[in-house]
Amino acid sequence: MDTADIDKIRAWEKIRGRPDTQSPVADVNDLVRLSAADMDDVNALIRDRMQSDVAIIPALADHLIAAGGKRLRPLLCVAAARLCDTSNTHHHNLSAAVEFIHTATLLHDDVVDSSNLRRGKVAAHLIWGAPSSVLVGDFLFSRAFELMVETGSLEALGILSKASAVIAEGEVWQLTKAFDINLSIDTYIEIISAKTAALFAAASESGAVSAKATPEQREALRRYGLYLGLAFQIQDDALDYTGSAADLGKNAGDDFAEGKATLPLLLAVQRSKDTHGDFWHRAVSLRQQADGDLHTAQQIMKDTDALVDSIAMARDYAAQAKACLSVFKSSAWKTALENLADYSVTRQK
Amino acid sequence: MDTADIDKIRAWEKIRGRPDTQSPVADVNDLVRLSAADMDDVNALIRDRMQSDVAIIPALADHLIAAGGKRLRPLLCVAAARLCDTSNTHHHNLSAAVEFIHTATLLHDDVVDSSNLRRGKVAAHLIWGAPSSVLVGDFLFSRAFELMVETGSLEALGILSKASAVIAEGEVWQLTKAFDINLSIDTYIEIISAKTAALFAAASESGAVSAKATPEQREALRRYGLYLGLAFQIQDDALDYTGSAADLGKNAGDDFAEGKATLPLLLAVQRSKDTHGDFWHRAVSLRQQADGDLHTAQQIMKDTDALVDSIAMARDYAAQAKACLSVFKSSAWKTALENLADYSVTRQK
Repeated sequence: MDTADIDKIRAWEKIRGRPDTQSPVADVNDLVRLSAADMDDVNALIRDRMQSDVAIIPALADHLIAAGGKRLRPLLCVAAARLCDTSNTHHHNLSAAVEFIHTATLLHDDVVDSSNLRRGKVAAHLIWGAPSSVLVGDFLFSRAFELMVETGSLEALGILSKASAVIAEGEVWQLTKAFDINLSIDTYIEIISAKTAALFAAASESGAVSAKATPEQREALRRYGLYLGLAFQIQDDALDYTGSAADLGKNAGDDFAEGKATLPLLLAVQRSKDTHGDFWHRAVSLRQQADGDLHTAQQIMKDTDALVDSIAMARDYAAQAKACLSVFKSSAWKTALENLADYSVTRQK
Repeated sequence: MDTADIDKIRAWEKIRGRPDTQSPVADVNDLVRLSAADMDDVNALIRDRMQSDVAIIPALADHLIAAGGKRLRPLLCVAAARLCDTSNTHHHNLSAAVEFIHTATLLHDDVVDSSNLRRGKVAAHLIWGAPSSVLVGDFLFSRAFELMVETGSLEALGILSKASAVIAEGEVWQLTKAFDINLSIDTYIEIISAKTAALFAAASESGAVSAKATPEQREALRRYGLYLGLAFQIQDDALDYTGSAADLGKNAGDDFAEGKATLPLLLAVQRSKDTHGDFWHRAVSLRQQADGDLHTAQQIMKDTDALVDSIAMARDYAAQAKACLSVFKSSAWKTALENLADYSVTRQK
């Protein structure tokens, strides 16, 4: 981390004060309620298009899809289209496509990371094998494009195919930067922009496009999605050190075990180089982890305010996301999207 | 295999006589020469669009793409467009897209099959790791769709996204049928139609679509591609038992080691159940292979005419492919596509 990064963190603290990690958790109940009819159609499409005569495909896909998850990306696509007063239902196809792209990346990520747990269930590759997970991911990805083609929108296809390439780039990039405790915060932000925020941005922008939004609305929703995605991922990275497996539906500490250079780790390393440099070098750079190392890492993150500052940064992005909505007049949908931004950084799972 | 399958094989033999496996090898020199200017542009597009700031992506992609392969699928797309007198160059983008889809499936297949050798080089996943191979496959797949979007042809996008889903289905299907020595020939044909011939058909049909071909021409080229793909895959499956690693650029006998239920194996098992039933049961169904088993399998295939009949079936499909071209008037492109069909079933690698 360079000096500019530290200055940035300090600047946030000055402007916004220390984040209150005990603040009430926002929820997405309004968004879920508003989107209920749309999401019924989206979920029906998801169920319909994951079918195949090859029985293992719907079985494996259903394992992950039925486990639920928050469906944040399709919700975001629906909300963007509705905020722009859509008069068609193309956003149903696009929302299902976005969920398929996301599911495909989860299936491939779990193979890549050798994860054991996903959405509170045993990871699919441990039941059906890594080969099936890879290929069913490819199947869902292809079906996503079929869904998009049906909308007839080359613009939406362009947005989502570009995002898919950027996601893959981000994931390879992250892979090559694992165990790099000297990664700059700026590079970390670029990586999560690619691997996570790009799909949030594309979900939001493609929803706007399907509603024939103005260029200004479209750009506002693209940026809203991007900042929301950044906030969401940073919160995720913080929760990986603070959450419980029961809450998360995946193992806490996975990022540490895999040597992922996430914000809490990078801040903690930077602020404790003199006192704990040998610990970080051994446990992360050299990948020689022992029992109790995760606990030590968590303690240093608390002592150095690495966690609280990570959450501050997430909240800053959430605030930027909300600010993007200023081009829209007040509405229930606008409020729901503002709440979604708050939710992304106060959720505990 | 049921009686109908045996009857089918016997019928071919009666109509066409025994295939002469020593017949001269057809070549694709004319097709390559005719397509040279188009393929220069296609190859430039391929090089351009596999670039990324994440250095490992072009390095890994280039490892496979620079190794060459025959570029049959893009050649097919180019030839289909030219046969239909195209007046634009959309087939360049579609050809590059088809090659990216093919490369992505190769990268994923090698991870799925744990193959060691591909196109005469060490498989990418053994150099860069399976995770990178999976993710770079995803990247190329996404870039394929970006290339298609640029053509503005929703029809071509529909054809190729459908084909991609069918390919993944076919590969999962094949995976679930490995070690099944009782697979019917009809099911084997359905599986290779999906995993291989669907992309040949889509390459050919999308080339026609890009040229604004008539519905009759489009359907003729779709069927030409389908039959060509079937012929190509059956020849591949035969070569896996007869070819040398030096010729193939991959290990001969891989299919046997992986228990793939391909045509030579299925015919040999069916015809030697009484004499070698225990051998097939142990070596394939129970996956207990010993040194010399591949040689034994190859000997039974020769003794039972399983190999020669597989090649006969491949040649039957090649003939059907050529017959589809009857709707086109004579031209250098038509002759080149006829030769391509002959090449697909006389090549030794």
